[in-house]
Amino acid sequence: MSDKHYFPSTSANSLVPRALRALVSANDHLSLNYTERVVSNAFHDDSKVSIISGGGSGHEPAWSGYVGDGLLSAVACGDIFASPSAKQILAAIRTAPSKKGTILLITNYTGDRLHFGLAAERAKAEGLVENIAILHATDDVSIGRSKNSHMGRRGLPGHIFTMKIIGAAASEGYSFKQCLALGQAINGQTVTIASALDHCHVPGRHQQSSVPDNVVVVGAGIHNEPGQLHLSPAPPVEQLIEQCLKFLCDDSDTERAFVKFEPRDEIGLLVNNYGGLSVLELSALTDEIQCQLSSRWNIRPCKTLFGSFETSLNAPGFSISLCNLTAAARQSNQSVATLIRHFDCPTTAVSWPNTSRPSPSQQKTTFDDLDAEVNSQITASPRIKFDPLLLEKALRTSCERAIAAEPRLTQWDMVMGDGDCGEAVQGLAESVLQSVDKGCTASGDLLEVIRSVLQNVDDMGGTLGAIFGVLLSALYTALRKNSLDGICPNTPNFYSTALASATTTLKSHTGAREGDRTVMDVLLPFSEEFSKTNDFLSAVDVAAKKAEETRHLKAKFGRATYVGDASSQQLPDPGAWALYEIVAGLADGLGL
Amino acid sequence: MSDKHYFPSTSANSLVPRALRALVSANDHLSLNYTERVVSNAFHDDSKVSIISGGGSGHEPAWSGYVGDGLLSAVACGDIFASPSAKQILAAIRTAPSKKGTILLITNYTGDRLHFGLAAERAKAEGLVENIAILHATDDVSIGRSKNSHMGRRGLPGHIFTMKIIGAAASEGYSFKQCLALGQAINGQTVTIASALDHCHVPGRHQQSSVPDNVVVVGAGIHNEPGQLHLSPAPPVEQLIEQCLKFLCDDSDTERAFVKFEPRDEIGLLVNNYGGLSVLELSALTDEIQCQLSSRWNIRPCKTLFGSFETSLNAPGFSISLCNLTAAARQSNQSVATLIRHFDCPTTAVSWPNTSRPSPSQQKTTFDDLDAEVNSQITASPRIKFDPLLLEKALRTSCERAIAAEPRLTQWDMVMGDGDCGEAVQGLAESVLQSVDKGCTASGDLLEVIRSVLQNVDDMGGTLGAIFGVLLSALYTALRKNSLDGICPNTPNFYSTALASATTTLKSHTGAREGDRTVMDVLLPFSEEFSKTNDFLSAVDVAAKKAEETRHLKAKFGRATYVGDASSQQLPDPGAWALYEIVAGLADGLGL
Repeated sequence: MSDKHYFPSTSANSLVPRALRALVSANDHLSLNYTERVVSNAFHDDSKVSIISGGGSGHEPAWSGYVGDGLLSAVACGDIFASPSAKQILAAIRTAPSKKGTILLITNYTGDRLHFGLAAERAKAEGLVENIAILHATDDVSIGRSKNSHMGRRGLPGHIFTMKIIGAAASEGYSFKQCLALGQAINGQTVTIASALDHCHVPGRHQQSSVPDNVVVVGAGIHNEPGQLHLSPAPPVEQLIEQCLKFLCDDSDTERAFVKFEPRDEIGLLVNNYGGLSVLELSALTDEIQCQLSSRWNIRPCKTLFGSFETSLNAPGFSISLCNLTAAARQSNQSVATLIRHFDCPTTAVSWPNTSRPSPSQQKTTFDDLDAEVNSQITASPRIKFDPLLLEKALRTSCERAIAAEPRLTQWDMVMGDGDCGEAVQGLAESVLQSVDKGCTASGDLLEVIRSVLQNVDDMGGTLGAIFGVLLSALYTALRKNSLDGICPNTPNFYSTALASATTTLKSHTGAREGDRTVMDVLLPFSEEFSKTNDFLSAVDVAAKKAEETRHLKAKFGRATYVGDASSQQLPDPGAWALYEIVAGLADGLGL
Repeated sequence: MSDKHYFPSTSANSLVPRALRALVSANDHLSLNYTERVVSNAFHDDSKVSIISGGGSGHEPAWSGYVGDGLLSAVACGDIFASPSAKQILAAIRTAPSKKGTILLITNYTGDRLHFGLAAERAKAEGLVENIAILHATDDVSIGRSKNSHMGRRGLPGHIFTMKIIGAAASEGYSFKQCLALGQAINGQTVTIASALDHCHVPGRHQQSSVPDNVVVVGAGIHNEPGQLHLSPAPPVEQLIEQCLKFLCDDSDTERAFVKFEPRDEIGLLVNNYGGLSVLELSALTDEIQCQLSSRWNIRPCKTLFGSFETSLNAPGFSISLCNLTAAARQSNQSVATLIRHFDCPTTAVSWPNTSRPSPSQQKTTFDDLDAEVNSQITASPRIKFDPLLLEKALRTSCERAIAAEPRLTQWDMVMGDGDCGEAVQGLAESVLQSVDKGCTASGDLLEVIRSVLQNVDDMGGTLGAIFGVLLSALYTALRKNSLDGICPNTPNFYSTALASATTTLKSHTGAREGDRTVMDVLLPFSEEFSKTNDFLSAVDVAAKKAEETRHLKAKFGRATYVGDASSQQLPDPGAWALYEIVAGLADGLGL
């Protein structure tokens, strides 16, 4: 647990109002009572049931991020992990009056119950409201039935289902009683279990405990509570999820089985980040949960949300919630389609996930036709005819030179790089030779040969492979264009302009230039000389000279930049040298 | 930096495909090529320009979360912090073909440049695309002009602006050239600076370095790069933000000043979580940024986004991006209103923030009329008349007994609680006496007296204050209702039924019951006895007995539950005892 923060611990109490101010100043449709830390919907409609929530801060985006049409009318925000006062909650109730009634949706903690309870009683006593009720979210399953007789179960992030559905129902004009019954039904059909790797550090609080390194908590709360189970050593993730899902789904657990799941029930799944897991890890956890729900419990959720919905600051942990929408619909005399519609419908709450989906009229697209078109385009390519035997010889000689250079390339690269340059070049050359053996030069079409070599380059990998790939692809495109443009292929100029064009393209994809001790130290002057003289052999001479000169250059790219000063050893750059061997081999093979 | 993860380091490579599978299986409108780790829009329209992105994984929701209508057509996802291969990128290009053209929007890193470059050249060579271009995001300002000649600046999360606006433009039918020009203009007018408290731990990678405890990094990258400045000791947050904004906004910085901000320019602000900051802290940072932008740089963004847009796994850090929309509009021959419309318009990408806003026809609401109505309702309350002197005497005697009990209450609470119970009760009693001094009993209206005492209870705070508040509020409501119902107030039954109703209400807000060693140990039997006998004095006797009996009870609520076994010391519960003193004082004062 890191205790490092941008804000000093002395300013912990100012975090909440500042955070709310940032939220409201970025979003015109929200209002802020800064003193009472109440965020409300500036477009609240008092002909609809008001849904008011809130609680301790540190759980953002819960609940300030959920204020808006179709979700919460107003929220009161306490200090970090502390209930707001009745005065704050009363201010929230006042700011979102309703002719139909007000529902206070809260997570079931002692402090929240009392302060929201007090606010409700005060609101009644003051005649602020006709109808007011408290809806307690009680979705935690970590603590079994027998230990929960007093207070009922805790509220965990599963109430996100309740909140969204009754918020949407209220905005559709449902009555106070309908909203309340719906909320009670959904809460009653929602279960949550949470796990954490560690606690979060609460700004400004002293003497905070961590979870030991070898422990994973199951039954974690959202306020660093100790948690029901401490698994040590940390179990494999599959086993952890198995344990969690058993708590949620096991019908035979007499201490739990709070919700039953029947084969055809529509189920909502929420995997909530406690704040400190990477999105990547949370997503992979979601995959494991989805897999096990399907394979072990025959549950395939019709709705899955995963992300940061109700956090515990930045604690590395997560919760799994399941909501049986079918059972909740039955219990509240609604259709399950209605509940799903409420869950899916838009809201102006800024932290609710984007609800935009393709319109029902849109069709999923498949592009088989287009693929066919593309393929026919390739087969309709022009051809650049060579003597097949000459092509074969050029390729073979070039590859053989590259293979012969391998020991030197490897030796040089061991000093300055990953040591794999020689093997990579050798691998490429060997695979090209195999393609030649299989007859890739038989047609005598240079374009077909390049396409074949490109397949070999694909398997090469690494930076050098990518540079060869870019160069050859661009060369192919330029040769093909020259050919389509009707330029005669029987002149060196046909090839030198294509190479110049390919080199220009390559330069747009890498920042390396002459002098940086890379393959470019050979390629650029080689191409330039070929363009200038239209003399391949003269270009190869330049390549030889430049390859030799890389002995005196300092690396500016790649691993060689930080493994010490290779230039002091006066070794050539292996990539640059490899290219020299390749072009020299081509020249030999072509009999130039 | 914690290296604790749910998944073992050996499974690091499986995280990416599993995360993508979770995303796509939760969202029907996305498609997944699992082998190539390509996510695409299942409703892609090949008559629109394709915007394709991707890069190393570990930056989620970038970029898989941004696939959808109006944003990205497809993305290719590499290993953690490693570019996808050209083969993967080609698969993305193939899955989202376009008759207009394809733009590869990438952050400007060597590996991404090369592999996306290779894919682009291969796509051209294969005839997959007519038009294809790479748009490099280069928004980082941490490294000055003179050190960026080679590669150009790095891409940081500022490209979120470019991505959203050209994604929307493409879906509106803009041409390939228009989209590209627009993207270049926006990128050119976007600057980003980042800070980090620490690195993230990359699953499966060995020998990872942390940022020392007393250091804050400015100029942090999204891959644990060392960063430009190491500030030590960590500066105050105001000073850190000042430094960051200077990098972005200072016109006189010859190494930077990449974007100029004129007084009436429309500016977009993005504050991006690197993944490990709590939403609360990120929001408070946003507030500091907004304040300084306004006060020091005269910049009031027309659009502000803050949240996790492009993360560095769960690194505790953030980036600030500014986009000069006015300048970008000018440069691309668009109106700034058009750019803002593109930025605001809906997308089906699941990780783009919710774009639903109140419809233009909706009016902001104010509820002054309703407040007036409520106030008139209160003044129109019924009255329950008493002899004013009797009321005064009852209150005074009760308060004096409570004050006299303070030393004992404090002593008992020091052993078992926070030690503040005596003072809290004394404070309440003293403030009630002050109200009596000011004449709160003068009208002889019991309801007015209760309203007055409720004000005093508001200031009491704590659990006992909340319980007294709920009880009194509910008592007020019940008495008022009795009165409105025309029940005669001259019988004990009038009061005992109201108290019974208030007690029932209180029980709905707390789980505490008799035997839990709280104020309920006196309240519940007192109320019950009063209801049964309609004899206040007999109820007070029960209260005395029950207060005494709390000596033998074990605490089940509050702090007393974990400070050891108070019952062994045989001390009464101070809250319960305080209530006994209060009711006994009332009885004395009423002369019963």
